[in-house]
Amino acid sequence: MGTHSLKDKSPNKTIMPKRQTIQENDNILLYLNKKRSYLVKVEKGKSFHTHKGYLQFDSLIGKKLGTPLFSSLGVEFVALKPTLRDFIFKAQRKTQIMYPKDISLIVMFGGIGPGSHVVEAGTGAGALTTALAFYVKPKGRVYSYEIRSEFQEIALKNLKKAKVESFIELKNKDITLGIDEKNVDAVVLDLATPWLAIPHAYSALMGSGNIVSFSPTIDQVVKTAGVLKENRFVDIGTFECIMRGMQVAFGKTRPQTLMTGHTGYVTYARKALKK
Amino acid sequence: MGTHSLKDKSPNKTIMPKRQTIQENDNILLYLNKKRSYLVKVEKGKSFHTHKGYLQFDSLIGKKLGTPLFSSLGVEFVALKPTLRDFIFKAQRKTQIMYPKDISLIVMFGGIGPGSHVVEAGTGAGALTTALAFYVKPKGRVYSYEIRSEFQEIALKNLKKAKVESFIELKNKDITLGIDEKNVDAVVLDLATPWLAIPHAYSALMGSGNIVSFSPTIDQVVKTAGVLKENRFVDIGTFECIMRGMQVAFGKTRPQTLMTGHTGYVTYARKALKK
Amino acid sequence: MGTHSLKDKSPNKTIMPKRQTIQENDNILLYLNKKRSYLVKVEKGKSFHTHKGYLQFDSLIGKKLGTPLFSSLGVEFVALKPTLRDFIFKAQRKTQIMYPKDISLIVMFGGIGPGSHVVEAGTGAGALTTALAFYVKPKGRVYSYEIRSEFQEIALKNLKKAKVESFIELKNKDITLGIDEKNVDAVVLDLATPWLAIPHAYSALMGSGNIVSFSPTIDQVVKTAGVLKENRFVDIGTFECIMRGMQVAFGKTRPQTLMTGHTGYVTYARKALKK
Amino acid sequence: MGTHSLKDKSPNKTIMPKRQTIQENDNILLYLNKKRSYLVKVEKGKSFHTHKGYLQFDSLIGKKLGTPLFSSLGVEFVALKPTLRDFIFKAQRKTQIMYPKDISLIVMFGGIGPGSHVVEAGTGAGALTTALAFYVKPKGRVYSYEIRSEFQEIALKNLKKAKVESFIELKNKDITLGIDEKNVDAVVLDLATPWLAIPHAYSALMGSGNIVSFSPTIDQVVKTAGVLKENRFVDIGTFECIMRGMQVAFGKTRPQTLMTGHTGYVTYARKALKK
Repeated sequence: MGTHSLKDKSPNKTIMPKRQTIQENDNILLYLNKKRSYLVKVEKGKSFHTHKGYLQFDSLIGKKLGTPLFSSLGVEFVALKPTLRDFIFKAQRKTQIMYPKDISLIVMFGGIGPGSHVVEAGTGAGALTTALAFYVKPKGRVYSYEIRSEFQEIALKNLKKAKVESFIELKNKDITLGIDEKNVDAVVLDLATPWLAIPHAYSALMGSGNIVSFSPTIDQVVKTAGVLKENRFVDIGTFECIMRGMQVAFGKTRPQTLMTGHTGYVTYARKALKK
Repeated sequence: MGTHSLKDKSPNKTIMPKRQTIQENDNILLYLNKKRSYLVKVEKGKSFHTHKGYLQFDSLIGKKLGTPLFSSLGVEFVALKPTLRDFIFKAQRKTQIMYPKDISLIVMFGGIGPGSHVVEAGTGAGALTTALAFYVKPKGRVYSYEIRSEFQEIALKNLKKAKVESFIELKNKDITLGIDEKNVDAVVLDLATPWLAIPHAYSALMGSGNIVSFSPTIDQVVKTAGVLKENRFVDIGTFECIMRGMQVAFGKTRPQTLMTGHTGYVTYARKALKK
Repeated sequence: MGTHSLKDKSPNKTIMPKRQTIQENDNILLYLNKKRSYLVKVEKGKSFHTHKGYLQFDSLIGKKLGTPLFSSLGVEFVALKPTLRDFIFKAQRKTQIMYPKDISLIVMFGGIGPGSHVVEAGTGAGALTTALAFYVKPKGRVYSYEIRSEFQEIALKNLKKAKVESFIELKNKDITLGIDEKNVDAVVLDLATPWLAIPHAYSALMGSGNIVSFSPTIDQVVKTAGVLKENRFVDIGTFECIMRGMQVAFGKTRPQTLMTGHTGYVTYARKALKK
Repeated sequence: MGTHSLKDKSPNKTIMPKRQTIQENDNILLYLNKKRSYLVKVEKGKSFHTHKGYLQFDSLIGKKLGTPLFSSLGVEFVALKPTLRDFIFKAQRKTQIMYPKDISLIVMFGGIGPGSHVVEAGTGAGALTTALAFYVKPKGRVYSYEIRSEFQEIALKNLKKAKVESFIELKNKDITLGIDEKNVDAVVLDLATPWLAIPHAYSALMGSGNIVSFSPTIDQVVKTAGVLKENRFVDIGTFECIMRGMQVAFGKTRPQTLMTGHTGYVTYARKALKK
């Protein structure tokens, strides 16, 4: 490696970037097994009931994250710190929410990261919104459009649970009628009619900005790709991500029998300026 | 939406979060079409030669990102701002690099985002390292282990091109012999023998911390999952992500004929504390 | 086309290869919709009850195959002639049966067709046995091994329903202990331990004969492929067939949401003679 | 098993259903390895040249099928009896031919087997035609339509090589203008515009007969399914078969890196009679 500035200057270091203990009102994932886990708030004096017995929250306060605890029936749970993936899967919902696999590829193909300014529609239950806010922290911002105000209430609860609400503006507006923001880095669409928002997305994006649209049907993809082409977007592409779970066990490893066959297609493009 | 604090306070706003114009020494993606694009440095007085004619960099300086430009043969290119995806695909390499699809799922299942402290091995050509650094910005940090110092030189070039080198410590050490850091949020392994690093990863992680391992073969997955189980990790899972490109065109839409059938399996888990 | 012997000599012809009408004691597929159909025997004087009302068999006798009929509640059913696919799906079972997708590829990679002599194990509920018999008709024969005699009873019922029992010998023997037949065209294995049968399969096959093995786990595949190699088989290969249903409807076409992610791997090879 | 008529009456038997030795003018598959094999005619006095040396046909005549032979450079080949799969893959072609995976599922969903009468269009290079003929032997028949007579010449060569030409009528006619045959068991379409042939297919099929159409694009599928519905077909379905090769080796088993991502969709249905 020679003498460049990245060499390993401090070999033995203890990083303390995060609080390590559980406090009152933290959201915690009580993990039982691959099929059962619960995203709960640690409320003083309360207990949580499961089919494997109840757990008392007071016994968790002050303990380290990752600590095991035992239910009244002696069954072990583990108190985990929820990750983005948990907030997505455990989101309160009234609609189909997006899967982590699709969200992470939308983030990648949207070029979205810390500091990005992103316009999104529709908010829905806020699963994708939560993820976008998580990745644009701490200086970026998400402007999320939704015409159905009842969904905004649900989304707000989910955003607050993941503690990302301060990076978001929820807007009760129809994105197919226009986008208020200008010079944003990315526009992300999860709409029944994404093509109607594309001319507005073109105006809202900075030069070279990214657009990503998620749609379950091929007909939506074809219309979206067609309108992207008409609107001076380049590098237009579409893919789907098929996630295949494996059942891993010594001597009997195999792909899982049941599988989600399809969630949706991701279509992406970048804004070229007019000639 | 009622009166909650997220309501839309400032409807018409122009965000100016990023520089909009191309400057000398910027890295730019010269986009010709889906199959041909070039990640180049805008060097004053120089030109770039392609099979479609040459382009003069001076004509780009001061222009807006996303601007079209024409080669000496009159062919249009677009000057795009490179995204993480471009830095990954265009990385100088001596080894197989990881695909954006796998990288984005590793980031998601590693619970990695702004502020995360992540241990990674091996650095290789730095494609995954670049992505990890990109997502932990600005306060997080990546500690990347690699035993082959010649790879570190390549990785450093790739990291500098993506301007993320200041978020990384490259370490010329063997992770299967130990990890210096403690209390990190995540450990990411892309090694021939990930199982050898797992006991060290357990020590390095904070309680509830995430581990993610990427391996092409099933035998590696089986060994890794077995050692994770022995080392008090929970929520152990394995999947692969199959990305299927679509050829979208009105009247002749279909999945693409050729496809990458397999890159590797992602195995993930979380650290539970000892009883 | 010139003058070769295949030219179209008799342009307008009516082929009458099959009986066109439904007779007493025929097996018929009563088709309601994609999700509901019933494989039933047309018994004189009897009726068939469904949640959409009952159907009287007497009204079917003498009618043409494909005829619509109406239940007591006025719901339309269609009386279809069952195909091999129906006999497979509707087979009485006590075990997991094989899917048509895997069966048809086993037949193809086994080189099996009219006149083939095939050894099979184990019989199970007879789904694969039925298919093998169907394809080797009328001069071929299937020798099907099964150690659990209770399965043979079920298999026999299923074979009789499909009217292929006369092309089969059910053998209550353990194929891992030996194969009686010699010079067969193909050996097809659907066993927990196929590798134990491979040396016997080598002896039973004619030179250049085909072996095909179906196994759900990778560990079975690895052992099977290894033993094939040791036993002078060549052209050894393994694949899986992933069948993806499409939901086709104008304006909302897409792959189906739910999907069988995995059934098993097909491993095939051919017998080379010893040097 | 009790006393049913299928019991194992003759335990030790030698089946001699097929000629075991290679004769002059046989078609033989000279197998070198998974990537290289050659479908050749054993011509007396001639030799066959490969990059691994030449092979003399005379040394094969009278030898058993499956026999190893050595090239002039001492490299081992195996003389295999070609199967349907070889005739498909090695077919002379001017067009894209169908893959064995799709062919075997078309045969299954077409309900096609020994004795079936099948109408097919277009003949193309005859790969699917060869397979249909192979499975309908010895009493069935395939009526294959093709408007381009130059393809018929190629198809005829391929059919003769597989020795199935006597089960086929090649017809130099446009199936979208009409089908001569009546009461056939199945109609199989591999056409650019399958929907134009569907009303004719309805007339040609016996009641309850099967139709199967193979198309690469989704747009073809949507049109085909729509016209099937209008024409009193039931049990209409569409799927695609994704075949994934495995690289099997002790300690390094994994799916193959490269894969055919898409060949086409199979749409099937059955004829219901008019009310």
